[in-house]
Parts: sequence; structure tokens; C-alpha cells
Amino acid sequence: MIDRDVTLSSAPPPDRGDVVVISVDAMGGDRGPAAVVAGMAESAAKNPDIRFIVHGDEAELRRLVGRRKVLAGRCDIRHAGGVVTMEDKPSQIVRKGDGTSMWSAIESVKTGEAGAAVSCGNTGALMALSMLRLRKLPGVNRPAIACLWPSLNPHGFNIMLDVGADIRADAPDLLQYALMGASYARNGLGLDRPRVGLLNVGTEEHKGRAELKQAQDLIMAAADSGKFEYVGFVEGGDLPSARVDVIVTDGFTGNIALKTGEGTAKLVGTLLKDAFANSIMSKFAALLAMTSLKRLQKRIDPRRVNGGIFLGLNGTVIKSHGSADATGVSAAIKLAFTLARSGFQDRLAARVAQAAASAPGAEAAS
Amino acid sequence: MIDRDVTLSSAPPPDRGDVVVISVDAMGGDRGPAAVVAGMAESAAKNPDIRFIVHGDEAELRRLVGRRKVLAGRCDIRHAGGVVTMEDKPSQIVRKGDGTSMWSAIESVKTGEAGAAVSCGNTGALMALSMLRLRKLPGVNRPAIACLWPSLNPHGFNIMLDVGADIRADAPDLLQYALMGASYARNGLGLDRPRVGLLNVGTEEHKGRAELKQAQDLIMAAADSGKFEYVGFVEGGDLPSARVDVIVTDGFTGNIALKTGEGTAKLVGTLLKDAFANSIMSKFAALLAMTSLKRLQKRIDPRRVNGGIFLGLNGTVIKSHGSADATGVSAAIKLAFTLARSGFQDRLAARVAQAAASAPGAEAAS
Repeated sequence: MIDRDVTLSSAPPPDRGDVVVISVDAMGGDRGPAAVVAGMAESAAKNPDIRFIVHGDEAELRRLVGRRKVLAGRCDIRHAGGVVTMEDKPSQIVRKGDGTSMWSAIESVKTGEAGAAVSCGNTGALMALSMLRLRKLPGVNRPAIACLWPSLNPHGFNIMLDVGADIRADAPDLLQYALMGASYARNGLGLDRPRVGLLNVGTEEHKGRAELKQAQDLIMAAADSGKFEYVGFVEGGDLPSARVDVIVTDGFTGNIALKTGEGTAKLVGTLLKDAFANSIMSKFAALLAMTSLKRLQKRIDPRRVNGGIFLGLNGTVIKSHGSADATGVSAAIKLAFTLARSGFQDRLAARVAQAAASAPGAEAAS
Repeated sequence: MIDRDVTLSSAPPPDRGDVVVISVDAMGGDRGPAAVVAGMAESAAKNPDIRFIVHGDEAELRRLVGRRKVLAGRCDIRHAGGVVTMEDKPSQIVRKGDGTSMWSAIESVKTGEAGAAVSCGNTGALMALSMLRLRKLPGVNRPAIACLWPSLNPHGFNIMLDVGADIRADAPDLLQYALMGASYARNGLGLDRPRVGLLNVGTEEHKGRAELKQAQDLIMAAADSGKFEYVGFVEGGDLPSARVDVIVTDGFTGNIALKTGEGTAKLVGTLLKDAFANSIMSKFAALLAMTSLKRLQKRIDPRRVNGGIFLGLNGTVIKSHGSADATGVSAAIKLAFTLARSGFQDRLAARVAQAAASAPGAEAAS
């Protein structure tokens, strides 16, 4: 059963010429299927090579898709009556989730009909269902969610993982996160030899929890064979810095850091708007600086980097923010499209398999 | 010995009229004693009621203080030849730190000569020495470092603790953090009934680590007697929000969140400067908006909220950023002055003592 899963999902997605099919869970986001279909339409308008399989209430989806000319003939609707809510516990969904749009969306990746799946739904349930249906890659103990973080690096982003797949991570898990994150950076950001750092409360050798010191030894030893550079411990302030490309941490800490960063950027944005609304002079200044401010806004807009990637499964699943609007959904779809087309999934699987065979500490992690 | 310490340091600081004496460790910061003395001068210029006892290399301090007219006659120099470096381990400092400027600075609080101490030095060493010399308040298991966080609340700040005193915290520790944070919010921010939240990866009841669920029960039960409101789990995005005043977390997570928030604000600031430098038009706009932008910059400037407060000791110690410049040091000194003058230390001690006697879970924490 597991072998068959692996064979199916590691096969290249069936595409016609350059066409890539993305499986979309239309339900379960905070803004409902209208925002999701609007995001699909935004993507379809920009990208002629994209097709969709969209999962959810058929009547509603038919109505929403019918309104969007750009989706005509590019959208396969699959009825699923059940919806995974934000309140559902992952354990319930694993037992009773097979009639839901989320389950159905993952199924399209499992069968190979779609190159990747996107959902705005409940993160815990999406990870639980993805693990159940797609199975973990051989050699992976805990899959992780990786996010993109706006940074001062020339390519504009750093990668952080895990940002919430699992609230625990021991040293061998952190090693796997380093390997998977480095692979994502190589294939997704085009970096030959990504620089990996381990998130801690200080950069000094003696600081932090015991498992971080163990993880540091494992990651350092795996750097050469894993084709990355290990830069040592990094701190919260280094997340947007140019001294690192991949930041490794457990899912509890990573999730807090991700949401703190987003919250801070949002606060600064709010205060900036207030500042410019303050006087006639500043309103006039805002008009003059509009282009520059829009460029800045685009650079730090959390919707632009929307899309956590599940790493370590036999198939690509993208978790979009629950509150994503059309622009956010479209960003997640774009990420899914890029990864599906690049063949990233196969290269990541090969890297993890190789590392599992050669890296120190791999026995404990397999 | 412990009893004598308590008596000494819980006595009101000896001041002449409205004068408050602050003990300053001039060494050990990344920018050396020149930045610290410049910060003292900045504070002295703004505040006629402040006096200093400054600790460090006497010759150098005499030279630096001598250059600042505003410090003439307001600054008592105490020679200490040793310096605690950022690389020193707390355990070493506890054994051999008694000739250092940090030790000497804490000593002035212990003897009651100064109302509070400020240091830019090594956080771990400062906490270890403070615990050794000032001792924990009766009923406190783990002291905590509390920081101020720019927020959308009317008073402009939220309080977060622990941001790095201890990388561990179990449920009874988190309860104490809630009590101490609420007391600080009442006395420091003037809030009658502060709203306390517990930092987690989601606001749903079932999410997060087991100790957070236990802590939630303890904090909820202590809300009435502790004169605060418990708002439940909060996420990273809530740190700058108006739905909470005090955010409780362990020192590992809090430290990562603090530095992530600072790093993000700094990134946005850098990008904003770049955006305005982009074209002639935007440069002109920046000139027009100067006043508004300066106001914004002041609001989010991390130097303005510089100063982590050590809570849970028999005496007030403020940890300033290691990289603090004169403005940062001056902000930490202002905080020390405000707290010393308000009698906060005695009120906090009374609150913790009362809670230790009445709150559920207090036995485990004492």
C-alpha cells in the first residue's frame, strides 16, 4: 500500500504540454469558497498554463466558477459535501474526513491527477490528512511546514521551517528540517549552497536547550553531503537577515515567530497609514510617494508570501492562510504551480533518501 | 542572611526630596562605557531629579563623566576593574564575578543606596548575579524578564514575559509570570484590571503543549484574586494587538518572539528608507512627510522601549540591550527611574506574597 502511494505520487504530474493541474480545496477558509474561486480566477488570468480541479459544494462552486469567464473550460469541479472547520480536531478528521473537500483535494494529488494541492483550511487537519493519504517520504520522521520570510537577501526571501506541522522536534527531526529546507532553497530559490542556521536564544555555543546542541552537531556533520553551509545558531533578529537562507526550528517556536513577524509588519503598516493621514502636508506627500510606498507594501505584504509548504510527504501540499483573500489564495496557487512544474517533489525525495542513507543520526530519524 | 536581604532591599530607596539614585553598570555593553555615559548624560539633561552611581574602570569613567557638564556633581564613580563579557558563562560569573562592574552595580541596589540598577551586559550573567545577591522574592520560583512591546492599545504598549530569564517554565511558573506581569501593568502602565493572555500556536482550547493547558487552568483560577482578566490563548499576531495587555510565555519562546519582532520592525524601516530614496519624487515626498515619519519612527523605535525588567527579585534590575546606544541607555534609565520612584518593587512583592498564600498551584511554585 505504501509502496503504491510512493510510485503514484512521485510520478511526474500528467500535463498536456506545459499545463499544470492544481487541486484546490474551496471550502474551510475563513472567507469561504468565493474568495478561493476569486483567487483561482486571479491566477488563471495571469497564467495560461494553469488548470484546476476544485473541490467542495458542487452547486455553489458551479455558480461561483460560472461567473468567472477566465475559468471557463479550465476548471474541473468535484463535489464534496463535507467541510473541515477550523474547530475540528485532526484526530476526528482522520477518522471521519473522507467526505470532505480537503480529503478530496489531497486525493487528486495522490492519484496523480494534480501536481499539487492548495487548501485554506485547518492546518492540523490538513497535515493529518496529508500524512494519512500521501504518507511520509521514506526516511522522514516528522514532516514540516516551510514558509517564505521577506529578507534582505538578494533573492528577497528566507525559508523557515517548521512553522507548525508539529509542536515537538528532537535533534534528528531538526537535522531533517535542515536537509529538506536546504533542498527547497536549492530548487525553489535557486541557491547552489544554501546557508542553514538553527534558531536559538543566542548565538553563543553554550546557550539554549540541550536538543539544540545535539541538533547543531548533527547538522554540522551533514553539511557537506547535504550540499549546504551551516552558519550556526541564529536569533529571532536574523530571520529577515542576509546571513542565512534557511532557518531551522521546532513547529511551536516557528509558528510563534511567523505570526509575531506578520503581526509586527501589520502594526508598522497601520502606523504608517496613520502617519500619512496625519496632516494635509503628509497626505500630499503620500500621493507623491505612492509608487514607492506601493512597492514597499508589495514587498512586505504577507499575502504575497502566502503558502506554507508541507515538506516530507509523497506529494506537494500548500497550506494557505485561513484568512487569505483572493490575492493570498492566488499567491499560494502560484507557489503550487512553480513547485509542481519544477519537479521539486522528486528532487526533495531523492535528497532525503540519500541523506537517510549517509548522514550521521539518520538511523534515529528513519 | 536571606531575611536581612529582604529587609534591606524592600525598604524605600533613600532619596533626598524627589531625587532618585540609579546604579549604572558602565561596562560590558557592545558599545563600551562611552555609550553608557552618553545615555546617563541624556537622562540627566531631561530629568533634574536623577542621580547616578556608576560602576567600572575609574580612570576611564572619570574622563568620560568629566566631559559631560550635565553630570557634574550628580555622579558617584565606583571603581570595579573586572568586566563581565558577552562570552562569560553565568556559572563562572557567579563564582568569580565579585570584582566586576556588574556585581558592584547590583550591590548598590542591595545596600539600598540606589533605587534600581541598569546594565547593558550579558543577560544570563546579570540574572545569575541578581539572583545571587538580591535573592528571589518569597514565593517566586523562576524570576522573569518583562519587556514592553509597541501595541495598538491606547497606552501604546503591551507587556511580555518571560523574554529570556530562563529557557524553561512549567505551569506554576507561568502562573507567577501572569501575576507579576499583571502587577507591572497595574503599576507601570496604570491599568486597573490588566488583560492577561497565554502565548500559544492557536487560540483553540485543544492546541499547544500540555503545560500550557495546565497553566491556563491555574491562571484562570487566579484571575479574580490577582485582579486581572484572563483572555485565553493568544498567538504571535496578538502581541501588538489591543485584545491583551500582558502576554505570558516561557523565556525561550519569548526571547525568539521579542527578537523576531525587533528584526521585522528593523527590516520594514530599512525597506521604507529604500523606498523613499528611490526617486526624486519620493525623496521630495519624504521631506514633506518628515514630521509624520519621525513620529512613526519614534513610535516603533526599539530603543524607546529598551529595558527588560527583572521581576521576582528583592530589588529592581533593568537589562538594557547589549547594543544600546545613548538613546537606548537613556530609555532604560528612564524606566529604572519611573519604577524606583513609584514604589513598584514593594507593591509587586506584596502581590506575589498574597498570591503565593492564596492562589491554587502556589504550593508547587513556592
